[in-house]
Amino acid sequence: MSYNLLKGKKGIIFGALDENSIAWKTAERIHEEGGTFVLTNAPVAMRLGQIKELAKKTGSEIIPADATSEEDLDNLVKQSMEILGGKIDFVLHAIGMSINVRKGRAYTDEKYDFTTKGWDVSALSFHKVLQSLYKADAMNEWGSIVALTYMAAQRTFPDYNDMADNKAYLESVARSFGYFFGKDKKVRVNTISQSPTPTTAGQGVKGFDGFISYAEKMSPLGNATALECADYTVTLFSDLTKKVTMQNLFHDGGFSNTGVSQEVIEQFS
Amino acid sequence: MSYNLLKGKKGIIFGALDENSIAWKTAERIHEEGGTFVLTNAPVAMRLGQIKELAKKTGSEIIPADATSEEDLDNLVKQSMEILGGKIDFVLHAIGMSINVRKGRAYTDEKYDFTTKGWDVSALSFHKVLQSLYKADAMNEWGSIVALTYMAAQRTFPDYNDMADNKAYLESVARSFGYFFGKDKKVRVNTISQSPTPTTAGQGVKGFDGFISYAEKMSPLGNATALECADYTVTLFSDLTKKVTMQNLFHDGGFSNTGVSQEVIEQFS
Amino acid sequence: MSYNLLKGKKGIIFGALDENSIAWKTAERIHEEGGTFVLTNAPVAMRLGQIKELAKKTGSEIIPADATSEEDLDNLVKQSMEILGGKIDFVLHAIGMSINVRKGRAYTDEKYDFTTKGWDVSALSFHKVLQSLYKADAMNEWGSIVALTYMAAQRTFPDYNDMADNKAYLESVARSFGYFFGKDKKVRVNTISQSPTPTTAGQGVKGFDGFISYAEKMSPLGNATALECADYTVTLFSDLTKKVTMQNLFHDGGFSNTGVSQEVIEQFS
Amino acid sequence: MSYNLLKGKKGIIFGALDENSIAWKTAERIHEEGGTFVLTNAPVAMRLGQIKELAKKTGSEIIPADATSEEDLDNLVKQSMEILGGKIDFVLHAIGMSINVRKGRAYTDEKYDFTTKGWDVSALSFHKVLQSLYKADAMNEWGSIVALTYMAAQRTFPDYNDMADNKAYLESVARSFGYFFGKDKKVRVNTISQSPTPTTAGQGVKGFDGFISYAEKMSPLGNATALECADYTVTLFSDLTKKVTMQNLFHDGGFSNTGVSQEVIEQFS
Repeated sequence: MSYNLLKGKKGIIFGALDENSIAWKTAERIHEEGGTFVLTNAPVAMRLGQIKELAKKTGSEIIPADATSEEDLDNLVKQSMEILGGKIDFVLHAIGMSINVRKGRAYTDEKYDFTTKGWDVSALSFHKVLQSLYKADAMNEWGSIVALTYMAAQRTFPDYNDMADNKAYLESVARSFGYFFGKDKKVRVNTISQSPTPTTAGQGVKGFDGFISYAEKMSPLGNATALECADYTVTLFSDLTKKVTMQNLFHDGGFSNTGVSQEVIEQFS
Repeated sequence: MSYNLLKGKKGIIFGALDENSIAWKTAERIHEEGGTFVLTNAPVAMRLGQIKELAKKTGSEIIPADATSEEDLDNLVKQSMEILGGKIDFVLHAIGMSINVRKGRAYTDEKYDFTTKGWDVSALSFHKVLQSLYKADAMNEWGSIVALTYMAAQRTFPDYNDMADNKAYLESVARSFGYFFGKDKKVRVNTISQSPTPTTAGQGVKGFDGFISYAEKMSPLGNATALECADYTVTLFSDLTKKVTMQNLFHDGGFSNTGVSQEVIEQFS
Repeated sequence: MSYNLLKGKKGIIFGALDENSIAWKTAERIHEEGGTFVLTNAPVAMRLGQIKELAKKTGSEIIPADATSEEDLDNLVKQSMEILGGKIDFVLHAIGMSINVRKGRAYTDEKYDFTTKGWDVSALSFHKVLQSLYKADAMNEWGSIVALTYMAAQRTFPDYNDMADNKAYLESVARSFGYFFGKDKKVRVNTISQSPTPTTAGQGVKGFDGFISYAEKMSPLGNATALECADYTVTLFSDLTKKVTMQNLFHDGGFSNTGVSQEVIEQFS
Repeated sequence: MSYNLLKGKKGIIFGALDENSIAWKTAERIHEEGGTFVLTNAPVAMRLGQIKELAKKTGSEIIPADATSEEDLDNLVKQSMEILGGKIDFVLHAIGMSINVRKGRAYTDEKYDFTTKGWDVSALSFHKVLQSLYKADAMNEWGSIVALTYMAAQRTFPDYNDMADNKAYLESVARSFGYFFGKDKKVRVNTISQSPTPTTAGQGVKGFDGFISYAEKMSPLGNATALECADYTVTLFSDLTKKVTMQNLFHDGGFSNTGVSQEVIEQFS
């Protein structure tokens, strides 16, 4: 399936780890839709991942960059424009990681060094990416920037831990920077609040399988898959959504506005 | 328990049907806090209810009024001021009824005569009450008006049927009229979005018991009771909340901002 | 510009009055994207409008229908399937009208006959459309239904009058019916909350020009035009947004999440 | 005015700098309502402030504590229980500071050392306070914790800079920790989203006067004062709001739900 929705558009994709990643699927779909891009990931994540395969498949180059490093990001932006031959039309930020979760620390027992590092990687990195792009005047007019988020930013999911607070910060950055990017550069900035998705990263979260199953039963259309998220992101990168900005967009089969579903209530009757 | 929070304040209370009603509990608490009021209900509801007992207990008079009738409401407002000896400080709107629910019509099979009647009783009645008060210039400055609502206005609960849409309309009326009542009369208008409460009215809803149980497990502090809602309403009628207006205030033990609780997720693991 | 995003898709479009209408622009864009449709409008609106020109241009048939009449809607749905040769993939509801506004009645001085009629036309009509489609099992799986709304459903704009409450009801219907249409038919239902748009209908509202100008200054990307709204609607009708449902989607250049803009604040410094 | 609403209740108040502070007014009102408390502030802020005067007036002790230091907070909690003679009933967190703002760095030109420090002081400090209280099991059942916030967490105000993102994080912490504090300790956690208030801290923000004036014109009841915020906080610390938790409560004269006011629109007509 291809509509040529992104023909001629150039971008940067953060966070394609392996073929389960939303960013991976998005890269594939963008490629099908005629877009070209640079792939980037943290050097350490790249050693773990199979990103070279994706680069080959999509004819992309890879630029390692630590998304918490201003220097790395400035370099990434500069190199991307050289490689792609001009300014950037789209950026996908799909980065997130909680060390408290990894280390098994409860939300009520955070180790703040972990918290700060997780916030830097998961939330502040988005500001850093935006600021690098903004200062380098690297975005084309009517360009589009998307970050992935999760509804824990609005409501508590006990196992989501400090990622909830990180996502709240990330969504706020999208609004705050979206204002300036809109006014000054005519660029839109949005977040997609995606269903729980069985990515390699997501699967590490305690109780994730039970939660996936619960979310499936609570979502009138079922959970959104990684591929469906890629499709949705394509629309946000296209020229058909030019006036959508500073929004947090739920892509979740209706979960967010379902108070309770028939299937769930029946468990309690 | 009494703090004299409402000493000298005069009001009108709609919807006290029997001792399970939130409005009934609120009337009792207002009485304890030093407020005086007129009780009102639809003539038909009064025949069913035990409102005279409440009137006796709280030293109140009863004025029957159909809340969908402008004439009845104008008369109610006029008589209330005469009885209470001056303008009104607080009003509680606790009225709601879906004929589609009563008649067992599914949301996808509404009978629109029922829908219109239910909307008039449950939602438009609040505008009619406000307009009667506004036109008669019946509210004292810094008076406070509260209507009860439910979170189905934001998220779907399948058995809540057309009451969801009625509550959305009601909450919108609180905002819209709250603007004018604020600007022109310095009066605040808010809605309280209460936990599911086993009132006599609520118990008629299909699957209500299962839902109460689910909500209890989803609310970190448990469901809010009718008496707790009465307490909360007292604070909104007091002089301590003068700048809270046009808000929909969740009074639900945290349900509204809980994505899922540990107890609920365990059912799906 | 065409991507063939809607190739082979069949639909019904309500509310194309004249070339300023959002529905008109949407019909044109859908036609360009390969979709076919039936145009419908109230018999009275059709006498005023130039809908025949649009029908000719897009190769469409016109079926007059009063959107408050179940009989008319059932007939419309049945005839549309006959004309289009099968079930429906997309529906656009772009209908709204306040008689209180037309007759110059303030929000604090509503005439309730007007209010009821306006609610029926602007809000309940959406439920009626959905119920007709649902009962006739007229929608294809993964079909998409969109209604246009305005942010007055969330925040008060003094001149928007009872349309605010109507839009709140409409948005609730999208969520409530979206639940059942999702579960039972795999169909999505959403609303687009559009910038103030100088349509022929919109221009009748008091103070509309000042408001357009204010909104333009408050929106980092400027107000969204009717054509841009058409583009956005095309994405929601496409197969790229299958898991977006029960959402109210702001299409407003960022207005909804801008607390104040630099231009506006400067007027007060 | 006193209702004895907080008779016998014991607490900790962060952030009383001088008599313009909301925390200062709140301390005075709590004292009037029969509550006792410990005052705390950063050692550096205390040198600048007149907190001793407040301590004398309210019969309180002062414990200096850096709210970013776990050790200081653990000590504060321990000492407070000794001084007050038991567990804590209420806590007010009124701390916030952006070094980017102070140093005149634009939001699009953040210095990330400043950002991190500001986030630690303004946002993470709330988690640290909550975690200290939780781990020490220092809160009585049905205790109440409030943090002050601002609507920039939801919508962009260009001069509010990185404080917007900090407040979004803070509000998320209230929800996330509110879940656990509710479940495990029956303690509620909320944030109050207050009108712009001419505190000594607030006045440092660029364009603050113009913004105060704009907000006044946009709020149907006018801006909420520091004293009114103190009153509102008293209700949230009282036993009358036991089931309100994990909420962000707007205390702003209606600003948050006003799309535009008549006064503002007239500037653009």
